[in-house]
Amino acid sequence: MLLNQKNPHGGDIYRHSALLDFSASINPAGMPDAVRQALMDAAAACNVYPDPYCLALREAIAAAEGLAAVRGTAPADCVLCGNGAAELIYSFAYALPKDRPALIVAPAFLEYAAALAAAGIQADYYLLSERDGFALTPKILDLDFTAYGAVFLASPNNPTGLTVEPSLIRALARTGVRLLCDFCFLDLTQRPDRYAIPELIARYPNLAVLNAFTKSYAMAGVRLGYLLCSDPTFLTRMSEKVPCWNVSTLAQRAGCAALSCKEEWLRQSAARIAEERARMRSALASLGIITYPGEANFLLLHSAYDLAGPLNDRGILVRDCANYQGLGNGYVRIAIRTAPENDRLLAALREILRIPASPDQAVLEERRKK
Amino acid sequence: MLLNQKNPHGGDIYRHSALLDFSASINPAGMPDAVRQALMDAAAACNVYPDPYCLALREAIAAAEGLAAVRGTAPADCVLCGNGAAELIYSFAYALPKDRPALIVAPAFLEYAAALAAAGIQADYYLLSERDGFALTPKILDLDFTAYGAVFLASPNNPTGLTVEPSLIRALARTGVRLLCDFCFLDLTQRPDRYAIPELIARYPNLAVLNAFTKSYAMAGVRLGYLLCSDPTFLTRMSEKVPCWNVSTLAQRAGCAALSCKEEWLRQSAARIAEERARMRSALASLGIITYPGEANFLLLHSAYDLAGPLNDRGILVRDCANYQGLGNGYVRIAIRTAPENDRLLAALREILRIPASPDQAVLEERRKK
Repeated sequence: MLLNQKNPHGGDIYRHSALLDFSASINPAGMPDAVRQALMDAAAACNVYPDPYCLALREAIAAAEGLAAVRGTAPADCVLCGNGAAELIYSFAYALPKDRPALIVAPAFLEYAAALAAAGIQADYYLLSERDGFALTPKILDLDFTAYGAVFLASPNNPTGLTVEPSLIRALARTGVRLLCDFCFLDLTQRPDRYAIPELIARYPNLAVLNAFTKSYAMAGVRLGYLLCSDPTFLTRMSEKVPCWNVSTLAQRAGCAALSCKEEWLRQSAARIAEERARMRSALASLGIITYPGEANFLLLHSAYDLAGPLNDRGILVRDCANYQGLGNGYVRIAIRTAPENDRLLAALREILRIPASPDQAVLEERRKK
Repeated sequence: MLLNQKNPHGGDIYRHSALLDFSASINPAGMPDAVRQALMDAAAACNVYPDPYCLALREAIAAAEGLAAVRGTAPADCVLCGNGAAELIYSFAYALPKDRPALIVAPAFLEYAAALAAAGIQADYYLLSERDGFALTPKILDLDFTAYGAVFLASPNNPTGLTVEPSLIRALARTGVRLLCDFCFLDLTQRPDRYAIPELIARYPNLAVLNAFTKSYAMAGVRLGYLLCSDPTFLTRMSEKVPCWNVSTLAQRAGCAALSCKEEWLRQSAARIAEERARMRSALASLGIITYPGEANFLLLHSAYDLAGPLNDRGILVRDCANYQGLGNGYVRIAIRTAPENDRLLAALREILRIPASPDQAVLEERRKK
């Protein structure tokens, strides 16, 4: 819970009279019906404690991820559930050694640094360069990883949306450093399978994969995330850093419901997002706004003009990225939403930048109406 | 989440084919209709992030508790919400200094020790004595409290059910030691007002009051607790030990709904529980089972015979208290449930102890049927 500090994240619709929230990156398809129904059905089961082991959910996650037994550890025992992926970031940090810094590939989700601070661990930053288009390159392998208790990286990265090459993740894992791979936005990209997660988990016990239900199934209000890792000692240490019943009955049931429709839901969602993302990149380019080749359900923009303030004045909330380590003024993250919502953002941007709708744009809009 | 360890608590109906669970101490009246309805309504609002400040809920809690502004801190800023009271026990422990032990008045809820272990803080125990009937006496004031980073105590205590005299809590607070008063079962006793919580909070910034929605409103599956304290620096430190969105939208809305029916609900619940508790104590005494003068919605029993095993064989789950510091074999905690359920427990105990239903008992049952 936040107290006496400014909310450093997006999505705070409770303190903005926003009509349209582009600051939180949530699947524009919304919540699957099966999840909503599971939440409503679960209400009647909330008079008793949740399963502290989350067993049914962990077995469903292990099956959905295609995990196999690893060195005598059952697939479900490679899964830890959390009260949102954010809680798992904290328990991961609390479980790290305190005598060495941890390395954050930045710009990055701000909860990594917050969790390290909570755990009393120094955060060092490996800054992605604008010159590389914020891509993570094999140059990172030149580091001496024995100096770090852990490395935090995300694919797709938040806020750039760029993915990390699977071969580079494997090369990092081979250094032996404890590696948190935040894949919370991976399910909404088009080729999540290329990471071969079951094989990654089986081969590298020092590697942990983080995932969330938040974004893919639009259930941010429910709080549910999970972590995959084949090091049972480390997972037990993590589990001991949080209370017994940290995952609610509602979250456990909603998670199982989400997995029951996973394949079709994610395939369709990713395809629609990819289409809108491509359209938005091209439309934003025509407005003179720089975008980066992200593969997620959001885009990082750069503009010489202040966009966040004037958009906010028009009831459109975007994520000003000035408080990301390694970024600065002029960077803004926008979610990819539905086509009509994205059009409203483009119209507002045109108004702010005083650019009339181009004929091409009009043609494009005409075409989409058919 | 638990992993690779035996569940140390009660209420684990997921690994027992129990017909009747007396091991978790939840209001026998169940969940208020308003809470169930709020949960169902909230499902549709879960596609976005929860309010990370829990503002509406914290204002409702401050109002329901009758808190006033303290030294420039607004009432709602004396309230911290958590993902269950258990999470607040953890963030309290994480916010303590690590160079001194913390003292647990024991026997006590096991999460205190688990949280201190997670935070790397030594747990010392102040053992309540069977000779005192497990009552906390002013003898505790002889301790040198400067040696401790904090003291954990509960009123009613779990598992004894005994309350601590309000004057003794004030005397402990006056020592200046940081004091966690776990009042999670207080709302289901008959005289919660005698603690004058708003005055306690205002007068002693070193004192924190912990409360939960879990028990009083039978919403254990939702996860919601809160902590009251007028030390804003300490509350901020606590809030920084957990992730940003730790309280779900469902919990925030269910909590507001619970508070809207608080007064009548708690008054009726406490009265019914007191009646059944008195009846159970007398019936258990007639079976030769020792009980302690608890004031909560549970009772601690002691018997020379093994009760937990044979009850479990009959589909009745009770809390074997052998793993509580300061207790041992022969101690069992039972929830106070509805009259017909309590009768089933008594019948099973008579069967186990081979005691025929006494004529008095038959008369009593006859009377209740009218």
